[in-house]
Amino acid sequence: MKQLKHTCARIAQHSLFTSIIIGLIIVNAILVGLETYPAILEKYATWMYRIDRFLLWTFTIEIVIRLIGSKSIGAFFREPWNVFDFIIVASGHLLVGSYYVTVLRILRVLRVLRAVSIIPSLRKMVNALLLTIPSMGTIMLLLGIFFYIYAVIGTMLYQDIAPEYFGTLHSSLLTLFQVITLESWASGVMRPILVADPSSWWYFVTFIVIGAFVIINLFVGVVVNNVEEASREETPSPTDIKLDEVQQELKELKKMLEDRS
Amino acid sequence: MKQLKHTCARIAQHSLFTSIIIGLIIVNAILVGLETYPAILEKYATWMYRIDRFLLWTFTIEIVIRLIGSKSIGAFFREPWNVFDFIIVASGHLLVGSYYVTVLRILRVLRVLRAVSIIPSLRKMVNALLLTIPSMGTIMLLLGIFFYIYAVIGTMLYQDIAPEYFGTLHSSLLTLFQVITLESWASGVMRPILVADPSSWWYFVTFIVIGAFVIINLFVGVVVNNVEEASREETPSPTDIKLDEVQQELKELKKMLEDRS
Amino acid sequence: MKQLKHTCARIAQHSLFTSIIIGLIIVNAILVGLETYPAILEKYATWMYRIDRFLLWTFTIEIVIRLIGSKSIGAFFREPWNVFDFIIVASGHLLVGSYYVTVLRILRVLRVLRAVSIIPSLRKMVNALLLTIPSMGTIMLLLGIFFYIYAVIGTMLYQDIAPEYFGTLHSSLLTLFQVITLESWASGVMRPILVADPSSWWYFVTFIVIGAFVIINLFVGVVVNNVEEASREETPSPTDIKLDEVQQELKELKKMLEDRS
Amino acid sequence: MKQLKHTCARIAQHSLFTSIIIGLIIVNAILVGLETYPAILEKYATWMYRIDRFLLWTFTIEIVIRLIGSKSIGAFFREPWNVFDFIIVASGHLLVGSYYVTVLRILRVLRVLRAVSIIPSLRKMVNALLLTIPSMGTIMLLLGIFFYIYAVIGTMLYQDIAPEYFGTLHSSLLTLFQVITLESWASGVMRPILVADPSSWWYFVTFIVIGAFVIINLFVGVVVNNVEEASREETPSPTDIKLDEVQQELKELKKMLEDRS
Repeated sequence: MKQLKHTCARIAQHSLFTSIIIGLIIVNAILVGLETYPAILEKYATWMYRIDRFLLWTFTIEIVIRLIGSKSIGAFFREPWNVFDFIIVASGHLLVGSYYVTVLRILRVLRVLRAVSIIPSLRKMVNALLLTIPSMGTIMLLLGIFFYIYAVIGTMLYQDIAPEYFGTLHSSLLTLFQVITLESWASGVMRPILVADPSSWWYFVTFIVIGAFVIINLFVGVVVNNVEEASREETPSPTDIKLDEVQQELKELKKMLEDRS
Repeated sequence: MKQLKHTCARIAQHSLFTSIIIGLIIVNAILVGLETYPAILEKYATWMYRIDRFLLWTFTIEIVIRLIGSKSIGAFFREPWNVFDFIIVASGHLLVGSYYVTVLRILRVLRVLRAVSIIPSLRKMVNALLLTIPSMGTIMLLLGIFFYIYAVIGTMLYQDIAPEYFGTLHSSLLTLFQVITLESWASGVMRPILVADPSSWWYFVTFIVIGAFVIINLFVGVVVNNVEEASREETPSPTDIKLDEVQQELKELKKMLEDRS
Repeated sequence: MKQLKHTCARIAQHSLFTSIIIGLIIVNAILVGLETYPAILEKYATWMYRIDRFLLWTFTIEIVIRLIGSKSIGAFFREPWNVFDFIIVASGHLLVGSYYVTVLRILRVLRVLRAVSIIPSLRKMVNALLLTIPSMGTIMLLLGIFFYIYAVIGTMLYQDIAPEYFGTLHSSLLTLFQVITLESWASGVMRPILVADPSSWWYFVTFIVIGAFVIINLFVGVVVNNVEEASREETPSPTDIKLDEVQQELKELKKMLEDRS
Repeated sequence: MKQLKHTCARIAQHSLFTSIIIGLIIVNAILVGLETYPAILEKYATWMYRIDRFLLWTFTIEIVIRLIGSKSIGAFFREPWNVFDFIIVASGHLLVGSYYVTVLRILRVLRVLRAVSIIPSLRKMVNALLLTIPSMGTIMLLLGIFFYIYAVIGTMLYQDIAPEYFGTLHSSLLTLFQVITLESWASGVMRPILVADPSSWWYFVTFIVIGAFVIINLFVGVVVNNVEEASREETPSPTDIKLDEVQQELKELKKMLEDRS
């Protein structure tokens, strides 16, 4: 048993093992890409099904090897990426009966995301990105309140004038998302409303000015902060190295003085 | 009297008190959201009116408790957020007769903003945002002059060619705001004018280039400045900590030398 | 003569003098704004002409006072803002015969820009902005070459397919400016061309990717650089202040050692 | 032979030589610009052909001179810009038979890019830009995976609803590029699909939010990093200069102490 564990751990850490998995993920990616062409899908449906089955079982074996090779089952599932890999592969087995269903096909597309969990540099980058999310909690809450208030006001005021944009609270939120991306906010959304309600410009102008101001100010703030932190942690600045030397020299001076007294 | 003051202060600072108010604000938010659906509003109009009345009186009691619990009435109203809370709630009482009027309903939506004054992290963030406004005074003045000059020139030149965009000074300013957000500036605004006046491109191109240049340069400047300031104030850098140690060691050395002489 | 010079210098530096000029510039701004309304212009044409004449002569007197009050005529005209003021006012006199001509009216709008030369904070900000222009010389040259090459290729390839966008080199440059602002680049410009030439997507995608990359990389670079420089110049950092103290203490230590030996 | 090498090296480094080449590149640029006007091209076709031939041979001689003047042929071609110059000029000779073919004409437009290899400041700037590309390798891979997954899902879901946008994997990728630039993403792409599939908003909103987040976070990160690195390398900060002085003084102190003991 211990022998098996050891062998699995060695296999899982071997670069060839990783390379093969990356290769199979690429094959999987090409496969889901080809399946979007109805002509190809129709002609080679059986073959594609077989390759997909093969890939699924290979990924299953891979995860079993990595699971056995890990210190313990608990340690394996404490790493979120392993949980992600496990869910992606396990769902493929559970939903196997309904092969041609769209949900299943989307799950198979998501297997391409396993490249992130396998390639260390991608994994590191995505981890860094996910770490910035908590620091954006307050800004997201603030943006949420801001969007909600404007959506309620928009629905109240323009429900009857522009039902396709402000008909319900839900469509107002979507419209405001469109407005904050500045896409057709004037030509598509505001100008038709302006004809019926000439004072409606304040609604859009204040929304864009406040929204852009809040988003830029906070988003940029968070990003710059993260970048600064990252660059600070990586390498000590030349200033700090010099200061270390100064401290060392001061210690020596002190010792010299102490020795003499 | 002093006893009451003390009790109120303790209630106001209790976390349960804050939690209840946050909960009621959420109820208020859901209520104004539901009211945007005409079917629901019609059916439950009486109930909604009652809940709204209840919420308004609860918020009134809350403010009275916090007012009594504060050091003095002056100290309470010196905090702008308290003034904001007071106005939002008081206006609900003053305008109570005209319950179904739109202005009143918008005021009730704004009660959701009270979440900002209640939740400390939101309050801190909004305060930080508001603090950046004064530093943008000069840029706003410059942008104002820039917009005004272009609006006057635009109205003079294109008043007859494109009355829907440059008909009056007011609509020119709105159009220029649309142009600076780059929304349909070419396809919607410039190209139709270009047909009548082939040299009009300089008006739009210079406006966008200068406008983008000024806005990016100054806006980013202000934002980066604020971010830097914020990060500087929060924690002393490792460099500064080391320098403090160096200064400490130098003092010790000096003392050693002084003791010996 | 010297007495006059001295008096003029004192007047020119008086805050009331500046305030009056700012007030007159605001009157001038309101005047050109009102003139854009044909109804008002028609009714009060004579009055507006008179006020305009009065403003022009007041500005003339103002510049003469400042000219006499300056150290020498050469020193006065060495300051670019004075040259700007002089041209704006002098052109008003030279072109006086053709009062209703558009060019003249635009010149009168530009008098509002005198606010920048009069208000110190605006002047300082615009000076800072103009100083960043030389540092962008190389990037502008690079962008120019980049735009020119794409405009020539675009004209060559799509001259016949989309004459309204790529008919001549000049219109291609304008279209590329539209594309780099991302305005209707796909829906308006690319998709119609894509129908006739299915491989034309590479032209637009590469242009946007390279253009955005170059502009962001260099523009942000210049801006950040300027911001950093500005914040560096303003105040010595706390680190530098501490280092100065360390150097001072080291000098004292050295002196103590020297005194003893 | 050595004499010739020496003469060529001196010519190649002479500023007049560079000026002439820059002048000829400008002539070449004007020429390809004029050729886009069919009327001019038709009338002066022979002359333009002759000037083009002359320019090509002058550039050939220039490269031969620089090749002979360089230390060795290997050293010459180790510099990528020389390889670029060589290919641009050599291809002009190889494809000479098919003068009027579009590919050839585009190659002649690209000769304008030689300005980058000749003007040192442009060369330095482009080199700096190209150096930032490797550091964006991981982000490009991540963006690629992200685009691919969304393109496959989009094709699967909206192939029949919106064939012009999501008909094939290839057109889906182009549409997603359009969506990430925020161009007509709502008015042109999403809203028509929304009519047929009311739940499709999640596809676009998540794509834009994740895409914008990833791109801003990483792109800005890379840019800021590069800017910081650049400014760090250029000049030692005043802090570092002072620290050097402190270290110098400490050494002197130590020596004084050593001398005395």
